[in-house]
Amino acid sequence: MPKLSEEVKEARREAILAAARRCFADYGYEGATVARLETATGASRGAIFNYFATKEELFLALADADAARFANLWIDSGFEQVLRALLAEDPAWLGVYFEIGRRLRTDEQFRLRWAKRAPDFEQRLEERLRALQESGELRSDVGWQSLGRYMGIVADGLAIRRAAGFQTDDTEALITVVLSAIRPQRA
Amino acid sequence: MPKLSEEVKEARREAILAAARRCFADYGYEGATVARLETATGASRGAIFNYFATKEELFLALADADAARFANLWIDSGFEQVLRALLAEDPAWLGVYFEIGRRLRTDEQFRLRWAKRAPDFEQRLEERLRALQESGELRSDVGWQSLGRYMGIVADGLAIRRAAGFQTDDTEALITVVLSAIRPQRA
Repeated sequence: MPKLSEEVKEARREAILAAARRCFADYGYEGATVARLETATGASRGAIFNYFATKEELFLALADADAARFANLWIDSGFEQVLRALLAEDPAWLGVYFEIGRRLRTDEQFRLRWAKRAPDFEQRLEERLRALQESGELRSDVGWQSLGRYMGIVADGLAIRRAAGFQTDDTEALITVVLSAIRPQRA
Repeated sequence: MPKLSEEVKEARREAILAAARRCFADYGYEGATVARLETATGASRGAIFNYFATKEELFLALADADAARFANLWIDSGFEQVLRALLAEDPAWLGVYFEIGRRLRTDEQFRLRWAKRAPDFEQRLEERLRALQESGELRSDVGWQSLGRYMGIVADGLAIRRAAGFQTDDTEALITVVLSAIRPQRA
């Protein structure tokens, strides 16, 4: 086999990831068998496992990319844009996330690996939330930790409702309500 | 076999439910096999299936009871008490709920059955939310539907975070933030 350039390798890796994401969304984590991943990606299992050691690594690479995307969106563009991105996300892919909930609960190693998806996220988020409290854009009568936790809970709740197939037709009202909890409160 | 009185039957049914709940929490929905349910309940499969036609019916009876409990709490005592109850709930049991997410997404019959857990809940909640808007306890610049949806999203998000094993040490601050979104907003 001729040696592939780094560009070609990277492009193949990205193509495998995109097709695998669709496959996981269509069949779920367990249902996305290696045979189905081969069909979806058009790559042999040998080629796939050349890029990702296991199916779990392939899935975690997708989860890593998502975590980085949402973390950057949160930190760079604010929580409202996270809400909008979640409302635009493929519900089937969101569903795959929640299939791994049991594993997160029972598998300590997996939980540690999962928590490391966006490694510097916690620190960058802390800095951002502190700055937003400082400038008066976020309420400061509660700690930034609680504001961050609130936003995480809302994001997860929105994602799981969409994953379960529930529709929302009042996006703007919902965003208004969610955001009013984190803005400075008038006495 | 002597005929059992209604009281004895009802007590046995309740005992099977309580033990099955623990079994589902410990092993998950799939992992709670009939053999494990027999061990947990101390009842034979014949006795169990005398009360519940299938494992799914047994699980749905538990989900029905939970849905009724949370619906009544919401309507009678307010959303703050729902948050407190979720914070006190067994995380392992909450986890079982989210295992069925994929099924909810892909199985229309199951989704219809699931939506019927607390049949008159939607109407009672609507009446309650309208009354709370009327009396000025809830904000009225957005529709009651959006307020109800917000509270549902927060409840689901809190439940899934707890199910995934994350700890909260700022319960009171979190409740303050969540509730400030639904109270009348001062301009």
